[in-house]
Amino acid sequence: MTSLKADERIDQLYSQDVQIIQSPSVFAFSLDAVLLADFATLPVRAKSLTVDLCAGNGAVGLFMSGKTHGQIAEVELQPRLADMARRSVTLNGLDDQMTVYEGDLAKVNDWIPKDSADVVTCNPPYFADLPDSQKNPNQYLAIARHEITTNLATIVATTSGLLKMNGKAYFVHRPDRFLELTQLMTANRLAPKRVRLVHPKPGKEANMVLVEAIKDGRPGGMRFLAPLTVYNQQGDYSSEVEALLYGRH
Amino acid sequence: MTSLKADERIDQLYSQDVQIIQSPSVFAFSLDAVLLADFATLPVRAKSLTVDLCAGNGAVGLFMSGKTHGQIAEVELQPRLADMARRSVTLNGLDDQMTVYEGDLAKVNDWIPKDSADVVTCNPPYFADLPDSQKNPNQYLAIARHEITTNLATIVATTSGLLKMNGKAYFVHRPDRFLELTQLMTANRLAPKRVRLVHPKPGKEANMVLVEAIKDGRPGGMRFLAPLTVYNQQGDYSSEVEALLYGRH
Repeated sequence: MTSLKADERIDQLYSQDVQIIQSPSVFAFSLDAVLLADFATLPVRAKSLTVDLCAGNGAVGLFMSGKTHGQIAEVELQPRLADMARRSVTLNGLDDQMTVYEGDLAKVNDWIPKDSADVVTCNPPYFADLPDSQKNPNQYLAIARHEITTNLATIVATTSGLLKMNGKAYFVHRPDRFLELTQLMTANRLAPKRVRLVHPKPGKEANMVLVEAIKDGRPGGMRFLAPLTVYNQQGDYSSEVEALLYGRH
Repeated sequence: MTSLKADERIDQLYSQDVQIIQSPSVFAFSLDAVLLADFATLPVRAKSLTVDLCAGNGAVGLFMSGKTHGQIAEVELQPRLADMARRSVTLNGLDDQMTVYEGDLAKVNDWIPKDSADVVTCNPPYFADLPDSQKNPNQYLAIARHEITTNLATIVATTSGLLKMNGKAYFVHRPDRFLELTQLMTANRLAPKRVRLVHPKPGKEANMVLVEAIKDGRPGGMRFLAPLTVYNQQGDYSSEVEALLYGRH
């Protein structure tokens, strides 16, 4: 039996047959995590290492676990979320494959050597922590959404440090920080190669962007894949998103 | 009567009621020019100046002429193309509004003062002139497609120099040079703000990108508009492109 805390529930991603412990009052994965996990290409081989930074309750790593026989490391600063991630790993019988490291990603090399990862994924806090930022009074959610405990420059530098040459980084972020993200990548030996924009509805501007970068890749040659539209004109999930959430049936 | 040269024809853009002299053996506008002209927002007022660089046979300026009461300057290096542009201006009765300058855009300030333009548009040569570049043996087409006589760095610097503070630059380019373009813009006081990707068909990656930048605009805040898809699943023009070419009916 998995023991749940008072405000927790178990959510299921049907397409992956994965169960996730989460709590709306602390953290709950959103579509961003599902899309990032889908966008990332992982080496299948057992001797591979994928690291998910800013892991939250571990959703991205759990969703990706079916893509590889290799190890997946989750790095999360907040003890309450890292604890949820650990229990979800156990709940899904993935203790042999997944490890949850609790602490500041800037110190990640205390646990994971430099130049050792094949893939790094990250769904970072989206909003800069400016003096006039409206932050969630719930500290768990504020830290997940705002750059209170880290920032994009640190995250990108950490990502690059973790990756082997030709290793791949996958980020999901907001379009208004796309240029900042790609400039930081370029400055940190990460060549952005594939981009996918996510639009909430047909005819609407993008509200999310997925970026793949290759460590020490040649500059240039960026491709913009076919966009993803979340809802169709009728307000239902598009067939692609429905398949990501519920599987093809 | 307009006198056409042997290999020339008059093409009409029905949506704009504009006639364009062109020749497939020298230069013929493509959808890129139509999309760039549509993407650009021009000040309506008579005391405004729009400059089109790398103007070719003048298509972009001619397509934009209905958007403003202001002046439109076309800058084109190749005498044969500048001559076609001039005759098209006359053919459309636009001699009071449009001026065609023939020469190298790096010397544009011989004709147009610095910091004087409200808008600069450009459909530049798309391909770098590398030692191994496959170039069209037709020199007119080679110069229009490859950076033989100019390059993106020069074009962006020239664009920024022409623009007033808060003036707007509009470029169409290929996605694989999007990062280079936006990095050059940022280095030349142009803040990229609005981006529109153009996909040839549903489900295909983008083969064109439209970028709006503001001179001395605040960095950040880039938006990706709803994408444009040229052909629908059946292989016909999408309704948006059909309207751009033939008008709404």
